[in-house]
Parts: sequence; C-alpha cells; structure tokens
Amino acid sequence: MAGILKNIDSPAQLRMLDAEELEQLAQELRKFIINIVATKEGHLGASLGVVELTIALHYVFNTPIDLLVWDVGHQAYGHKILTGRKDIFETNRQLGGISGFPKRSEGEYDTFGTGHSSTSISAALGMAIASNLKGETEKQHIAVIGDASIASGMAFEGLNHAGVTNANLLVILNDNAIGIDPSVGALKEYLTKARVGYKPASDNIIEALNFKYFGPVDGHDLPGLLKVLKKMKEIKGPKFLHVITRKGKGLKKAEEDQVKYHAPGKFEPETGELLKYDTNGLPLKYQDVFGLSLVELAENNEKIIGITPAMPTGSSLKYMMKAFPQRAFDVGIAEQHAVTLSAGMATQGFIVYCAIYSTFLQRAYDQLIHDVALQNLPVIFCLDRAGLVGEDGATHHGVFDIAYARAIPNLMIAAPRNEVELRNMLYTAQLGLESPLIIRYPRGRGVLKEWQLPFKKVVWGKGELLKEGSELAVLSLGNMAGNAKEAIQQLEKPEKVAHYDLKFAKPLDEELLASVFKKFDRIVTIEDGVKKGGFGSAVLEYAASLDYKGHIELMGVPDEFIEQGSVHELQEISGIHVEGLRQKLESMI
Amino acid sequence: MAGILKNIDSPAQLRMLDAEELEQLAQELRKFIINIVATKEGHLGASLGVVELTIALHYVFNTPIDLLVWDVGHQAYGHKILTGRKDIFETNRQLGGISGFPKRSEGEYDTFGTGHSSTSISAALGMAIASNLKGETEKQHIAVIGDASIASGMAFEGLNHAGVTNANLLVILNDNAIGIDPSVGALKEYLTKARVGYKPASDNIIEALNFKYFGPVDGHDLPGLLKVLKKMKEIKGPKFLHVITRKGKGLKKAEEDQVKYHAPGKFEPETGELLKYDTNGLPLKYQDVFGLSLVELAENNEKIIGITPAMPTGSSLKYMMKAFPQRAFDVGIAEQHAVTLSAGMATQGFIVYCAIYSTFLQRAYDQLIHDVALQNLPVIFCLDRAGLVGEDGATHHGVFDIAYARAIPNLMIAAPRNEVELRNMLYTAQLGLESPLIIRYPRGRGVLKEWQLPFKKVVWGKGELLKEGSELAVLSLGNMAGNAKEAIQQLEKPEKVAHYDLKFAKPLDEELLASVFKKFDRIVTIEDGVKKGGFGSAVLEYAASLDYKGHIELMGVPDEFIEQGSVHELQEISGIHVEGLRQKLESMI
Repeated sequence: MAGILKNIDSPAQLRMLDAEELEQLAQELRKFIINIVATKEGHLGASLGVVELTIALHYVFNTPIDLLVWDVGHQAYGHKILTGRKDIFETNRQLGGISGFPKRSEGEYDTFGTGHSSTSISAALGMAIASNLKGETEKQHIAVIGDASIASGMAFEGLNHAGVTNANLLVILNDNAIGIDPSVGALKEYLTKARVGYKPASDNIIEALNFKYFGPVDGHDLPGLLKVLKKMKEIKGPKFLHVITRKGKGLKKAEEDQVKYHAPGKFEPETGELLKYDTNGLPLKYQDVFGLSLVELAENNEKIIGITPAMPTGSSLKYMMKAFPQRAFDVGIAEQHAVTLSAGMATQGFIVYCAIYSTFLQRAYDQLIHDVALQNLPVIFCLDRAGLVGEDGATHHGVFDIAYARAIPNLMIAAPRNEVELRNMLYTAQLGLESPLIIRYPRGRGVLKEWQLPFKKVVWGKGELLKEGSELAVLSLGNMAGNAKEAIQQLEKPEKVAHYDLKFAKPLDEELLASVFKKFDRIVTIEDGVKKGGFGSAVLEYAASLDYKGHIELMGVPDEFIEQGSVHELQEISGIHVEGLRQKLESMI
Repeated sequence: MAGILKNIDSPAQLRMLDAEELEQLAQELRKFIINIVATKEGHLGASLGVVELTIALHYVFNTPIDLLVWDVGHQAYGHKILTGRKDIFETNRQLGGISGFPKRSEGEYDTFGTGHSSTSISAALGMAIASNLKGETEKQHIAVIGDASIASGMAFEGLNHAGVTNANLLVILNDNAIGIDPSVGALKEYLTKARVGYKPASDNIIEALNFKYFGPVDGHDLPGLLKVLKKMKEIKGPKFLHVITRKGKGLKKAEEDQVKYHAPGKFEPETGELLKYDTNGLPLKYQDVFGLSLVELAENNEKIIGITPAMPTGSSLKYMMKAFPQRAFDVGIAEQHAVTLSAGMATQGFIVYCAIYSTFLQRAYDQLIHDVALQNLPVIFCLDRAGLVGEDGATHHGVFDIAYARAIPNLMIAAPRNEVELRNMLYTAQLGLESPLIIRYPRGRGVLKEWQLPFKKVVWGKGELLKEGSELAVLSLGNMAGNAKEAIQQLEKPEKVAHYDLKFAKPLDEELLASVFKKFDRIVTIEDGVKKGGFGSAVLEYAASLDYKGHIELMGVPDEFIEQGSVHELQEISGIHVEGLRQKLESMI
C-alpha cells in the first residue's frame, strides 16, 4: 500500500494532513476499495462516488464527537477504511468479519446501524436533540442521504420535524441520480433541475421546510467541499447541502454501467472487467423465473400489472417494464405507497403483482393489513429474498415474513419449493384469486434445470406428500424441501422418515396435517424463517386444537439476529442446514 | 327532518338541485350530523368542517363514476349521509351498524376503506392509473386529505409518484390546521403562510412536485368551491386544491375547543354543551395513568424523554409536554420517524418513552426491528389501545401487536393487568433497561380505585400465581386477568381452577410455566390479541420444547377482522368475554 493511506488509522490522523494531501489520499482510498471489492465482492459504486465527500467530512468535522450517520450504508466503505478498519476491510460481509453496513458494535464512528434506506435524518435528528438537551450546542450531527433515499416518506417525516427545531443537523444530499436503479419521482425531477444549473428559487422545497440550503456543489471537488463544509460547520440549526456525485467514480466501467456495478461481484481491478463465470447448466435465479414468467402471463392477460419499489433489477420486474411499460411501475423507495397503490389498482379490477423483498415489506406492514387484507383485495405479493440472504446480513434477511403475515386475516402465505411451483403459483394467481396472497422465494438460484414448463394450476392451501416413511414425518416449507430431501437421503434408514411439503404457511393443509397426526407420533417442521410465531408454530396451533399427543420439533431461525455470512453458514448457525436436520432426525428415530 | 335533505338519497338527486339550494342543504346536513352525533357519539369536528366541500364534490363530480377517497375518514359523515346512508346513520359505529369510517362493503361510494391516515393519495392514484389503462381518460379521482395527514411520509410518497404521471388525480388539501391535536412540522408552517395570505411562489412545494396548484380557497364558500372545482374538473393530470376550513364549523363550542370536539361524546345539540358524567369513584383511564406517572418519573430523572406521533391528547403525553416541554415531543403523524428518532436519542443515553397506539405501531414495524431491536436500544414503547378498542372498529383494534412483536429478537413484551402494574413497569423501565420493551395496555379505564401507589420494581419476564387450583390452570395476559378472575369466580367449583398472570408475552416466565406444566394436564391461555402467533402460541412453543403432553386451549381474537361494537360485544364475538371463558372452563373440568 503506497503513500498516505497506510498511515491513516483514524480521522484524527487524517486531520493532521495538509489539505493538499487529500487529493492523493482520495486516489489511494479509491484504489484500495476497488482492489478489495474486486476480489472479495461487495457494494462498489456507491462508495466510489463518495470518496472525496467521506474524506472531507472526517477532515472538517470532529468525528466521532460530531456524529455522522450514513443512510443505507452502501456508501460507507471509505468511512470504514478511514476509521480504523482498513486492515480488516477484506473481511467485509463475511462470517465473523465486518458488516457491509455501518454497525454500532464496530465502534464509535458507526453512530447508527443502517441497511434499509431513509432512516438517517430521523436518527441524526434524535442525536442532535439529545445534544441540545445535554447543552452540547457546538456539536454537529450529519446525515448523508442519497437522492433515491430522500424521496422515501420517512425521510420527509424527518425533514418536516427537523425544520421546526433548532437542532444542529446537517443533511447532505448525495445526489448521483441513482439508487440501485435510476431514481424516479417528481422530487428527483426537481433535483435534476438544480443539477443542470437551474437555480432553485429562494423558497425551494428544502428552504420551504426551514432548512438553510447550500449547493449544488461538485462532490468530487475536494477544495470546494472543504470550503462549504467549513462554512456550514459554523451554522446552527438545520441546514442542507446538495452535493452532486457520480456513482462508480474513478472506475470507467462502473461509471458507465452504474446498475451493474452497484454490487458487481468479482472483477479485474485495473479495467473493471467483470470476471466471467460459466453459468451454463446452472439453474436460473428465482427472481428471473418470477420476472420472465410474469411477462409470459402479462402477454395473455391485459389485467396484469407489476409494481416494484425501487427494485426493477433486483426483483427482475425490469423484464415486464421493458415488455409492457404501461403496466409495470417502479415507484421508488416507497414501500408504503407501493402497497396501497396496488390496493387502489386492485379495486378497479386489475391483477397486481407487487414485487418486494421480504425484508422491505416490513416497511409496509400496516398497509398490508389495512389497505389490502382488511379489504380482502387480491393483490399478489412476490417476496424475493425470503429466508436467510447471506452476505447482506442482519438487515436484509427475510426471516420475519411468515410470522408477521400469519397474524393477518384473509392473507395467504405460499412458499414454492422450486421454480416450477413458483411459476404455477404466479399463473394460478391471475385466474380469479379471491384474497391477497404472499409468494415467498429465496435469494439466488433455483434448483431445476428445466424451469419453463407449461403452466399448471395449483390448489391454494394444499400440501403434498413427497416421500413415504414409517416412523416420523418431516414437514418442510418452501425451499427447505431441498434440505429435508438431502437430510433424509443421508440417513442410515431413510425409509423411516416421511417427507411432506406443506407449501402454505397459511392456510395450513389441515386435511393433510390431520392424516400426518394420525400416522406419526414424531414430527419435525423446518422453515427458513423465525421459529417464534412461524410455520412450525402454526402446526403447533393446529395440533393443539386436535389435542395431538405426539412430539413436534420446530426447526427454524432462532430468536436472535443472524449476521452476515454465506447462506450455508447462516443455515448452519440456525441449525437448519442439511447436517443439522440429519442429526435431529437420527436422534429421533 | 326539514326541507331538502330528506329527499336526498344519492348524489344523483343532489345534482338535480339548483346551486342556490345547496346553502340550505349545508345547513340541514350540518344540523343532521350534530343531532345524531349528539346522542350516538362519534367524530364530530372533522365532518362539520367539510360539509360544504362534501356537497360541492358530489355536486360537481359524477360520483360514483368519478372516484372519491376520504383520507382517514373521520370527516366522511356528510358523505355517508348524502350517499344513501341517511336513514341508518344513527347506527354509526355500533355493532352491526355502519362503520365510522369509509368502508367498501357499504357501497360503491366508499371507494376505499380508511381509518389510518395518509393512504388516500396512493389509493386514488392507483385508481387513476387503472382508469388510464382502461382508456377512461375523462374520469376523475379525488383524494381529500387533511393538513396533518399530508405531512406523513406516505402522503409524500404518493405525491412524488403522482407528479411524474399523467393520472387524473385531484388532491384536495383540507387545511384546518389541526388533526386530532394541532398540526405540527415545517410543512404545516409553510401551509400556514398560505392561509394568512402569503402568496406561494410559482414554484411552491406542490408545484415543484409537478402538480397544478389552486388555492387557497375558503372551504365554507359554496359558490367559490363550485367554481374552482368545475374548472379543475376539466384539467387533466395531477392537480392540487388547497382548501381552508374550520374544524367544528357551525357549532360554536366545537369551533372553540377543536381538540375536545374531535370526538366529544354525548352533548346538547343546540348549545354543544357536553353532557356531564359523574366519574367520581371511577378508575382513571390507563392513558392518564401513563401520562401522569411519566411526569412523576421525569421529575426525578432528567434522562427521560417522551415522544408521540400526533397523539398528545389521546396518549396523555400532553401532561409531560406541559410539565417538561423540552423533553416531550409531538412529531406529527410520523410513526416511522418517531421510532427512529427515539432510537437516535437512545444512542445518546436518553430514556425514551415512545407513546403509540398499538394499531399505529404497525406503521413503524421495520423501524422497530432495525433501528431499535437490532441495535438493542432500550426504547420503551407504550402501546395504548392494545386489544379490542370498541367503536372505532377494524382499523383501530390493537390485536396484532403480540404476534408481530414476538417475532423480533431482543424485544420484551409486557402487559400489565392493572394501573399499579403499569406504573411499576414504567418505573422499572428507567432503572437501567438493557433491551427494548413494549408495554401494552387497553383503551379506557383501569380497574383500581387507588392507582397512585408508591412505585415498586418489577422483575422483567416474571409472572405470578394469582389463585391456586386443583385441576386446571388459566394463564392470562394483561387485562384479561380481570375476565379470568370473574369467570373463575362464577364457576360451580372455583377451587378447581388455578389462575396465573403471565404479565409477559416475551420473555415467557419459563420457570413458572414449567411448574404449571408439571402440575396441570389442562391449560387455558387467554389474551386480547390474535390467536395466530400470539401469547398462547408462545406457550405452545415452549410446551412443545418440553414435550408437554397435556391439553392447551388457546383463547384469543380469531383469525378474522373484528368490526365495531362495544368492547364487551367484541370480546363476546371473540369468545374471550367472561361468559365465554366460564363455559370453556366448565366444559374442561
């Protein structure tokens, strides 16, 4: 490692540099990020875009006394490297390593854990009000938020409150015109006018909310950034700096394809060239099975609509957006709006597929209850990234959905065990569904070679016997069927264990379950969601109602937050990997 | 009933009137609302404020072809009366009667069910996009939203999306400067400038979001309203009308005390004089026990902070706001912000009591998981209106909280059975709490005469034996202890039934439960939350882990949406009333 960066282990050391040295530091920091992410993978583009801003903030402000909150946290790699985690940065996103997001347990510079968007203003405002109460009136509190995140309602709530306080809050808008996909919405259009030189009026949106507005400034111009930040540091109360940056800055290919280089996987660090993987013969990703199947269905049913809150690429709704632009909508980071918009369309007879990651539907729980389920509107929620998602860690696992959705009347919860089942559920959902439906499926690739079989109708709420057995029964949900099948195959006496795929956490297939209770006095349930209140718990409730006297063993995600790691490692931690189930079954036979 | 109103059973009839007759209709409609609400109770002020607007909308627009969505719905009484429900309006909010909120099942004029705020723009936009897809380009879609509701993040998300569409959406801001309590926030200050004659610039906030802005206009000037609405009806695309109204308009006392007359209870219809009730000797409301106890605690602990999203009166945080204005915050209808703001303050060592109705915490589920529980910040959530709330109906019952919160690691869920327990939990929570805590308590009055006993420390997670018994055990949670106690007393042989108050849905008192499992082969759990995934389900999970072979019977809210009625009626429907439990116990002895 050359030059300056190698000697920087804290912002205090950074602040001892001459301002002229910062340009070189920026070059080195950018290079450092590229070299490590090139081999260890991670979120690239966002952190490259804020290299200068990160340096400027730690240079001008007295971190960690001044408190800095990174919204979402995709862009915090430079921050992590400059705040004492340079030497362990290569463990980023790995089991036992540092998190890919800011995390309070990693030290005092990470003032607030993030992962989902648009929380930074509220968090920093809370800190700023706290400082006021303590009489720490010189302290500054900084929220760095992107243009996609600031358009989310929660960010507006924070701005709206901050504007009537005298809190020392500095909101920095990191405006690169893109989130994971390009930003959308009227606010984005407004901000774009500012970017291209349109001078916001003296009562622009931000000033209307009582913030002192500065900018726009070039986020890659270090001297300019230092100058404006030094000036703003002396200003009390809520203030706002509009910074223009380029996502992927400094790596040509990343600048040119900002969507792909948001999290590009492994690449050649000099050129940015993506490493080629031979995916020939590998199953398709579940998200693509969803996205492509939806296009097939939409071709034959003009009532079909697709909606995604800011995840056209991640959910693969992009295929439908391309094929049927009039009927597919990216509404930005606005899960609440996405769900109620879906409900509104459903009242007019449209068949809405609302594609949301499992973890993000948590943002629209009330809308799911009130606007959809209470009115019994047959909206179809396609929950990608259900279960343990791997390297994104605790903020991104989709493990709560079964538990939180099961409490809601009228709402069905389905979990296909493979791509064909997913297709068939998507197909059946547009044939006169009478109540809302969740279809949850995992991150990553499916399990079949042939996914595009002709559509077949499924029966809602019906499970299936996959394998007979003489002594005990495994009840699996969704993709856990794969783990269960393998575990049973590895048993000394596989013939002793029956395997049922329940397919639905709600409604339960009570007929099938009653027959299982009759036949077996030992049952194991397995799911990739939390055990508390989940699928296994549903089986217990039904068993209790029948006064079943056998033993039911629940396997699922334990009652703790699971951090990052590979999906297999995290399944092992949760005890739901193949070997965990195999051992459990051996012990029960 | 005099004059014109008696002949109006539909907007079509309304539209046959001369415009000059509408003033008289407004008088009659106002009188009609006052007379019925005076005896039947309900939300008064909001509906009085929009009498002219309601008439004007149905007169100008072709409802129900044009689609009208009332945000929240407190203000929709006039709408209900003019759209065929005049004769059954006296059943408002009663069991089997019409809902106090718009409800799709009541007919085609209620285009979207509401109850929680800020959904109207998203819903109406969904309808408007649907109309465009159907080629119904003349159709208008109208969202009527208050100034408190429009400041909530979700409304912003709707505006932000609408502004980049060509949907025929008309947003009407019903600006009366008050929600249930006076509105707060920077947007409200901005709107106030418009109210007092400040001319918004041509790039005001709303126009910046690509809406055509009209107003402000006087919402009680019928000819003026008709004129502007007729003009706007002809305009395509998103448009916005700022209407100034007075909450409680036409009833002097209601205009003068808008908070009290939001939902005043019974009153004398001519004068507005509230009927006096002798509350002497009645227990205090739980909300006041919370509010007053918090003041006592805050007097002795300067780290204590109180936060409410727009419910200072309803949650009784108003007492602390008065006593310690620097440390108590009404952040407006912004539950997401309220929760993350609390988390931000907690990172700085403050002890935050976040007072939210159970049903409204659904709006901040993700923030509860990520910003509070994942970071294990010891925020205290005081969940008023937990359980069945009565006349407000399906949108307001706080029955999901145990199920949705139980899935979240680190989070404790407590339910006091009386006022003294609530006080002691509040007290103990500020003595070095190490993880987040929910305290849930019901709407309405407590059960004790003496509530203000000296504070005592409680032990987190510890239940209590209330009564010994020889044959079976009742495990109650929270205020269901009262029903259980009564039911047991009414048994032929009360000595056969033991009664335990578990106090915590999480963590369960496993030691106590293990002893119960040992002693009894029949157990009944009772809670005023949903059975699916709730407290009883938690008991089942623990019982299964111990391989308990006895019978456990779950009593709680069934898996359906419970409509409005008295709390007792709704408990009866759910089977958790005293008589329901008594019968269950008799059958099990």
